[in-house]
Amino acid sequence: MSELRKDPIVDRWVIIATERSSLPSDFREARPVQQSAFCPFCPGHEDRTPPEIAQYGRPPEAPANSAGWQVRVVPNKFPVLTIDGVTAPQGLGIFDMMRGVGAHEVIIENPQHSWDPATATANELKWVLQAYSDRIKDLRQDPRFRFIMVFRNTGAAAGATIEHPHSQVIALPITPKPVKGQLESARDHYNRKSRCIYCDILRQEEYMKHRIVQTTDDFVVMCPYASRFPFEMQILPRHHLHDFTQIDDSQKNALADILSRSLRRIKNLLDSPAYNMTLHTAPTMHPRPGRPHYWGTIEQDYHWHIDILPRLARVAGFEWANNLYINPMTPENAANFLRNVEM
Amino acid sequence: MSELRKDPIVDRWVIIATERSSLPSDFREARPVQQSAFCPFCPGHEDRTPPEIAQYGRPPEAPANSAGWQVRVVPNKFPVLTIDGVTAPQGLGIFDMMRGVGAHEVIIENPQHSWDPATATANELKWVLQAYSDRIKDLRQDPRFRFIMVFRNTGAAAGATIEHPHSQVIALPITPKPVKGQLESARDHYNRKSRCIYCDILRQEEYMKHRIVQTTDDFVVMCPYASRFPFEMQILPRHHLHDFTQIDDSQKNALADILSRSLRRIKNLLDSPAYNMTLHTAPTMHPRPGRPHYWGTIEQDYHWHIDILPRLARVAGFEWANNLYINPMTPENAANFLRNVEM
Repeated sequence: MSELRKDPIVDRWVIIATERSSLPSDFREARPVQQSAFCPFCPGHEDRTPPEIAQYGRPPEAPANSAGWQVRVVPNKFPVLTIDGVTAPQGLGIFDMMRGVGAHEVIIENPQHSWDPATATANELKWVLQAYSDRIKDLRQDPRFRFIMVFRNTGAAAGATIEHPHSQVIALPITPKPVKGQLESARDHYNRKSRCIYCDILRQEEYMKHRIVQTTDDFVVMCPYASRFPFEMQILPRHHLHDFTQIDDSQKNALADILSRSLRRIKNLLDSPAYNMTLHTAPTMHPRPGRPHYWGTIEQDYHWHIDILPRLARVAGFEWANNLYINPMTPENAANFLRNVEM
Repeated sequence: MSELRKDPIVDRWVIIATERSSLPSDFREARPVQQSAFCPFCPGHEDRTPPEIAQYGRPPEAPANSAGWQVRVVPNKFPVLTIDGVTAPQGLGIFDMMRGVGAHEVIIENPQHSWDPATATANELKWVLQAYSDRIKDLRQDPRFRFIMVFRNTGAAAGATIEHPHSQVIALPITPKPVKGQLESARDHYNRKSRCIYCDILRQEEYMKHRIVQTTDDFVVMCPYASRFPFEMQILPRHHLHDFTQIDDSQKNALADILSRSLRRIKNLLDSPAYNMTLHTAPTMHPRPGRPHYWGTIEQDYHWHIDILPRLARVAGFEWANNLYINPMTPENAANFLRNVEM
C-alpha cells in the first residue's frame, strides 16, 4: 500500500510507493526501456497483464482478454496507487498523510509493438483519444477522485520502462498544487475579465504569429511564450472548451491528425527524442454538501490542452532541484524550426 | 542578452538564454561531463576563465589570477544572466518580461581536479563554505537582486558539464514562485503559532527518530517526511537561524564535517551518484520606500538549510512533466540505510 504524504512547508503531496523498490542497489544503475524478446503488451500475451478494464476493436463475440483488440486498457501491474479502500486522511503531529488510493491504468495504444503515434494514421490515433476520453469519464464517476491525469512517457529519458506504445492514466484523491495554481489563476483571470485566459493568450499568439507552429480550423499548435524546454509545444482547441471529453467526432479526427503531425515534427527535427505528453482537462466536479464547488466557473474559465515536452539530454540540469527553468532556445526560434521541418 | 519571461497562467519565471545554443542538432545528443585533457578550472589555466571575483589561500603578494589559490570565484563564462544593466520590467499584451539581469558565478572549490567534498578534510570544505557566505553577502548589497541561490551539480545526470569540482551562484531580480511559496508558508506558520515551522519539524523528527540520519550538537541530517527522491537528505542547524551567512567559525567547522559525511554516505551507499545540492537561506531584504518589507518576520520564521538530492537514473520520469512526485523509497528506509552505511 502506498501513502500520500504532504510536505508540511510547501503543500506538496508526494506518493511514497513503498512496494516498488527497496534496496540502494536498485537505484545504482539506469533501467533501460524494456526491449526484450518478450513483451507483455503484445497481442497473445493478454494473460500477462491484469484483466482488461476496456478494449476497442475486438469483435463482440470474442472473449475478454484475447487478441484482436485495437486499443486495450489494463490496470498497471505495479500501480503507484491502489483502487480499493478509502482515502482516510490522517495527521501525525505536524505531518499530513492519506492512504495511496487512486487509479493507475495503462492504455496500450496499438497491437503493433513498433507503432508510433508520430507516424500513425489519424484513424488509429483516434481510437487512443477515444480511450483517453472514456477513461476520464469513467474515473470521474468515483467521488474519491479529484484529479485525473492522462500522459505518455516516450523514451528512457522521459521515464518510459516498456517500449510497446502506451499511455497512462492516474486518478488522485488530491489536486496537485501546481495544477491548483493553474486552475486558480484561470479562475482569477475570469473573475477580473470575464474571459478565459487561454482564449486571451491564443488570440494574442495568433495576432503575433511567431510562436505559432500550425493552425487549423479547430486547433492551434504553438511554442508557449515562457517555454521551460526547447521545442516545447502546446496544442489548444481554438474554440473555448473546458473539457476534453466533450469534443465531438470531427474534432477528434482533427486532433488525431494535428497531434500526429506535431509528434512527427519533433521526431524528424530532433531524431526521435524522448518526450512527455500530458493532457490537461477540467478537474472532476463532485458536489460537496453545503458549499458551492471550489471550481464553480470552470466551464467558462478553463481551456483543455495538450503539452508536449521533449526531454533533450543537454537540457537536464538544475531545473529539477531548484525549480528554476533555463531554456537555451527561444520559443520563437523553436516554432520556426518546427513549422518548417520536412515531414 | 537573456530574457526573463513570466508564464501568464502559473506565475512562473523562465530564463530564456538565447546565446547558449540555437540549432536543433545542438540538442540531439547528450553532452558528457567534460573530461578532456584540458581543464579551464585547474591551476595554471587562470587566464581561461573571466577574471576572478574572489580567491582564498593565495599569498597576499601574489598577482590576481595566478595559481596558488585554495578556492577561486569567477564569473560563469557562459552566464545565463548578465550583471550589467537594469532589469526594466516590460509588458506586451498579456505577457510580462524583464531583461536577464543577474549574477552567475562559479566557485572553483579546490585546485585539485579530482577533489571531492565527500572525502575532503573539514578544513578544505570550510574554505568553500566561506566562499558561499562571502558571495551571498556581497551580492545582497545589489538592490536589483531579490534571490540568491548557491548550488552544486555533480555528475551529468545532475546537469554538470565540467568535471573539476565547483559550485555555482545565481542572483535573480525575482523570487521564483516555489521559493515564494516556501517563504510564505513559513511566515504563515509563524503568524499562527509564533514559532518557526522548521524548528517544529525538527523537534518532531528528533522525537520520532526514524528519519534522522545523524545529529550533532549543531546540526541534524534527516530524510524529509515527504521526500520527493530516494535518499533525499536535508541538513538543518539545530538552533534557529534564518541566515546561513551568520554562522560562526565553529559552526562552519561543524557544518563542513557533517556535509562531507553526508555526501560520503550517498557516495558509498549509491556508488558515487549524481546529485544536486542547494543552499536555502533567507532572501535579501532591501527596504522598499513607503512600505514594510514583504518578508518582515523572516528572522523569526525562516530557517536556513541544505538539500541534497541524489539523481538516480531509475527515478527519472514523469515527475518533471507532471509536477507529481512518486518516490519508490520511504524516507524511513532511506534514513536507515544512510545511518548505517560504512564510511
